[in-house]
Amino acid sequence: MKDLGHGANVDEMAKLYGKDPKEIIDFSSNINPKVLPNLEKYILRGLDECRNYPDINYTNLRKNISKYININSNFIIPGNGATEIIYLLMKSIKKRLAIINPTFSEYRRSAKLNNIDIIDLELDSNNNFKLDIDTVKNNIEKFDCLFICNPNNPSGNVQDLKELVCLLNENNKMLIIDETFMEFVENENEYSLVKYIESNKNIFIIKAVTKFFGMPGLRLGYGLTSNNNIMDKIYEHKEPWTINSFADMLSNFVFEDKDYIRNSKEYYIKERKYMLQELKNIRNIKAYDTDANFILIKVYKKTAYELKKDLFKHGNILVRDASNFIGLDDSFIRIAIKSHEDNKILIENIKNLLGD
Amino acid sequence: MKDLGHGANVDEMAKLYGKDPKEIIDFSSNINPKVLPNLEKYILRGLDECRNYPDINYTNLRKNISKYININSNFIIPGNGATEIIYLLMKSIKKRLAIINPTFSEYRRSAKLNNIDIIDLELDSNNNFKLDIDTVKNNIEKFDCLFICNPNNPSGNVQDLKELVCLLNENNKMLIIDETFMEFVENENEYSLVKYIESNKNIFIIKAVTKFFGMPGLRLGYGLTSNNNIMDKIYEHKEPWTINSFADMLSNFVFEDKDYIRNSKEYYIKERKYMLQELKNIRNIKAYDTDANFILIKVYKKTAYELKKDLFKHGNILVRDASNFIGLDDSFIRIAIKSHEDNKILIENIKNLLGD
Repeated sequence: MKDLGHGANVDEMAKLYGKDPKEIIDFSSNINPKVLPNLEKYILRGLDECRNYPDINYTNLRKNISKYININSNFIIPGNGATEIIYLLMKSIKKRLAIINPTFSEYRRSAKLNNIDIIDLELDSNNNFKLDIDTVKNNIEKFDCLFICNPNNPSGNVQDLKELVCLLNENNKMLIIDETFMEFVENENEYSLVKYIESNKNIFIIKAVTKFFGMPGLRLGYGLTSNNNIMDKIYEHKEPWTINSFADMLSNFVFEDKDYIRNSKEYYIKERKYMLQELKNIRNIKAYDTDANFILIKVYKKTAYELKKDLFKHGNILVRDASNFIGLDDSFIRIAIKSHEDNKILIENIKNLLGD
Repeated sequence: MKDLGHGANVDEMAKLYGKDPKEIIDFSSNINPKVLPNLEKYILRGLDECRNYPDINYTNLRKNISKYININSNFIIPGNGATEIIYLLMKSIKKRLAIINPTFSEYRRSAKLNNIDIIDLELDSNNNFKLDIDTVKNNIEKFDCLFICNPNNPSGNVQDLKELVCLLNENNKMLIIDETFMEFVENENEYSLVKYIESNKNIFIIKAVTKFFGMPGLRLGYGLTSNNNIMDKIYEHKEPWTINSFADMLSNFVFEDKDYIRNSKEYYIKERKYMLQELKNIRNIKAYDTDANFILIKVYKKTAYELKKDLFKHGNILVRDASNFIGLDDSFIRIAIKSHEDNKILIENIKNLLGD
């Protein structure tokens, strides 16, 4: 793979610094550290399933997602992670796409591979990366679709998009929202646009399953739309059997585990507060407010690259150097919120390296 | 998913005829029925892995495949089944492609989606679907790449391609070979072109892992090439993390299980002979010789559709109606070679329906 600049390159870094990958605490990828209590049992149930091809229509998988989010299963497109959905969608819109930076780099890569014209809009770090509706309004003639990540990666803040939905509707523009991290948000129902899907054909939503449920290696995500035109184009391009039997089978159980879901949400609400409070007390960094399971940090006195290197060398800690996000400079890192114990180690190490 | 015309639609058929899917014997998809003896142990080892993203470079996975087939790991492109490799390859060759019919329909679909001009060549059923090198020679000015499945799906016969390799080399044409079913062939080493990969930049080979190892739900395949140009184009388009952690982890074990591999090969050599002998004794069908784990059958007195329906209704047996393969008519079915017990049941049912 050519270097796509993502986090989670634990093995590569460990090799570079002669460390044991098992000793590294990975803060560079944004995964729920809590695992489903009965994962082993669920996985073993999938053993028989994997001896056959998955159902090419993923009828049962779509039914399970449908029940979880209360959306007609015909509007659900299951994918090999959210990534497959992003790439399929870019094959299905052949127009001018506005991307709001800084954000997840695969939107741009998938759009470019499909020869889509990209219009770059910017979130202002001085305004805590809050979406400025006037920026969208002033550029509305330049694009046909607007891609927004909510909560945004890497800034972590969730946005109220109701006004944006109205503005785009009035102008008959399409809104694509990546809600990969929405389940980590405290008042998810207030911010998620899933409730608009059935009535609004100009909205497409991308969702991940395996981030919130702490199993990104399983590869499961989905897209939501009631737009028949987009749906048909996606299925025209969709490759068969992209979701493996384990992911398919696991959908029978994960969404039912309400305790796990509630506990995870409660954990993040509490741990975010703790992390932000601790990080904001450190003088030589600025931690941005977050509603997700990760935090963007501006570093003073060192570059992101230097701090990343020092944390790795001295603390066996891997963070995400965020300087390759368009719209950020070489002073930004992004850290995941992990277990309370791991988080304390990270904070201690940052203090040691940058001072209280 | 729109209907792509593949087999393995057990659930759909069961629903249509009011049967329990668990009672159906599926002869429509070509999977090794023998499962790895330690599969459960291997899968449980993957539980920890799936809590992280798979290695984006799949370094260890490529190393394991490299050891198995004795090819430099830099020439190996791992994929979500052979299917991902087929689609990536079609994004990476922008030329005229010859397809030899009847064959696997995803070649055509992936080529069409990438606006590749398709030149259709035909295998003659009266010549037992043997490749006629003169057909290729006579059309050589019309194409840049030739796609061939060896052993061919659905006809099952393996071909000696050495003469074809010479012809294409002399004319600087590219040869794409889908060797998905090659491990089922008795003298695999004589027919597989893997040994040419490192020296011949005009050959691209597609391989499946989970067909021979009986776990198609796990989704693992790979492509082989020493052509840097094609390799670069493939990685330009490749989506990240398409192979799940279980498939990645399992590669540490499956290729090492030499007993399983030998036993599977021996089973198929023996069972093919038995099946062909039995089927050739039935008057109202013609069974074509096969080197793979499936058999193409021409049916007299009934259409393929009628026989498929009758086998399902009366014997709970699902076969593949092969009439939608380009170059075949409505008299062809394809059956997988399954366990000896299942095979006996199939033969008995065909005899009951068509006479001895």
